[in-house]
Amino acid sequence: MCELLAMSANVPTDICFSFSGLMQRGGNTGPHKDGWGVTFYEGKGCRSFKDPMPSAHSPIARLVTEYPIKSETVICHIRQANSGAVCLENTHPFVRQMWGKNWTYAHNGQLEGFADELPIKLHIPIGSTDSEHAFCWMLDQLHYKFAEKEPTKEVLFEYVALLSKKINALGVFNLTLTDGTSLFVFCSNNLHWITRRAPFGNANLIDAEMQVNFKEETTPNDVVTIIATRPLTDNESWHKMKAGQWHLFCLGESIASGS
Amino acid sequence: MCELLAMSANVPTDICFSFSGLMQRGGNTGPHKDGWGVTFYEGKGCRSFKDPMPSAHSPIARLVTEYPIKSETVICHIRQANSGAVCLENTHPFVRQMWGKNWTYAHNGQLEGFADELPIKLHIPIGSTDSEHAFCWMLDQLHYKFAEKEPTKEVLFEYVALLSKKINALGVFNLTLTDGTSLFVFCSNNLHWITRRAPFGNANLIDAEMQVNFKEETTPNDVVTIIATRPLTDNESWHKMKAGQWHLFCLGESIASGS
Repeated sequence: MCELLAMSANVPTDICFSFSGLMQRGGNTGPHKDGWGVTFYEGKGCRSFKDPMPSAHSPIARLVTEYPIKSETVICHIRQANSGAVCLENTHPFVRQMWGKNWTYAHNGQLEGFADELPIKLHIPIGSTDSEHAFCWMLDQLHYKFAEKEPTKEVLFEYVALLSKKINALGVFNLTLTDGTSLFVFCSNNLHWITRRAPFGNANLIDAEMQVNFKEETTPNDVVTIIATRPLTDNESWHKMKAGQWHLFCLGESIASGS
Repeated sequence: MCELLAMSANVPTDICFSFSGLMQRGGNTGPHKDGWGVTFYEGKGCRSFKDPMPSAHSPIARLVTEYPIKSETVICHIRQANSGAVCLENTHPFVRQMWGKNWTYAHNGQLEGFADELPIKLHIPIGSTDSEHAFCWMLDQLHYKFAEKEPTKEVLFEYVALLSKKINALGVFNLTLTDGTSLFVFCSNNLHWITRRAPFGNANLIDAEMQVNFKEETTPNDVVTIIATRPLTDNESWHKMKAGQWHLFCLGESIASGS
């Protein structure tokens, strides 16, 4: 299995604090030592940092921890390989283009029989993971449904939720997916979220001896939602999502949900 | 205008030395201060480091200089903006997927009338540069010509050369393009290359006080070709490419060329 982390915010925000906790689970406080990756959006552009090395010992992960890249949307993943070898092409997040946007996808879980149940034709995987295969199948389905015309986000993500349920029937499918503006998350069995807004308080990381006073880092109008497979702090109340539940976040707020 | 750097090698090789020279041209010894990016291939996977900041002052560029990522194929670009604002989505290289491979593209030059002359339908640009537009047009043409079936590399790159000539008719089009195995370069007006092999010698960077003795860094069977808009060293003989000339490099050797 793997761990997911994602952020949606109404102002460009750095994710150094949450990432510092998560990266410890990649070979230190957790067994997810088979690579990691993070994708930051800045406007329509995005950039990813990836490494097939354990995040706890990666110089690139250290850079990401120390260099505050401010972004409104972030997707992050640390991997414990179960389907596909440990190598760069199997390292999440996966980024592909559709409708003049960068789509970024990361998956936690494992799927059975995906090659037969999720036939693909247009979007061909590069690596050998169940995760990338499911992403390619999802893009194929979006192309068949909407062709060259991107629908409204409400219509689009209702359909993505339906596709997620179909994939979820093959095993465990906790999903984070974004175009940089909308952040869609689907819970198969393990996803938590928290929205931080004024009045901001202190937060203690579970995985590292680190505390932050968000009041010193924010303005009163900031709204920042963090989504993670397991809570990253031990003194805040995280929402535990139910199996089959999904949320669509935009500018830090949940703007749609379903189950 | 911009500067290009690319590498093709028969063993995973780091590009720290050449990159150290190039990055100085991004705001220090050269005016290419409008962002930079580099893409490294490891097998079928690739990872990019990008920054809209000047490379000479970028903490991410410093990491790339100091952390030897070994790769058989690399494409690198530093930007002096002429078409499109300075922002992440306009920062090269551009990476897109086709035929189950990552295709990486970087362009030096400027194109006139590209929106009318290079109509696109399937691959929609994310940013606003002439460069990304031309890449999307090229991918559209490859899809029309070969559809889902990837041709042999000889057939493919002969056709890419033809497409490059068409784009080049719109202005200046120095190109580097790779799928991680084959590295195609097209010279519009400014491209040089050098192949280093045994017996290896010393090289002096032009843009930084740095010298390397490749004999200490290599084995006798290594073959490494470096391509750059302008030579990076002052004590070696670089081949200057002619206008309209192209080369296809594989494992450090030129395996096809034309003009």
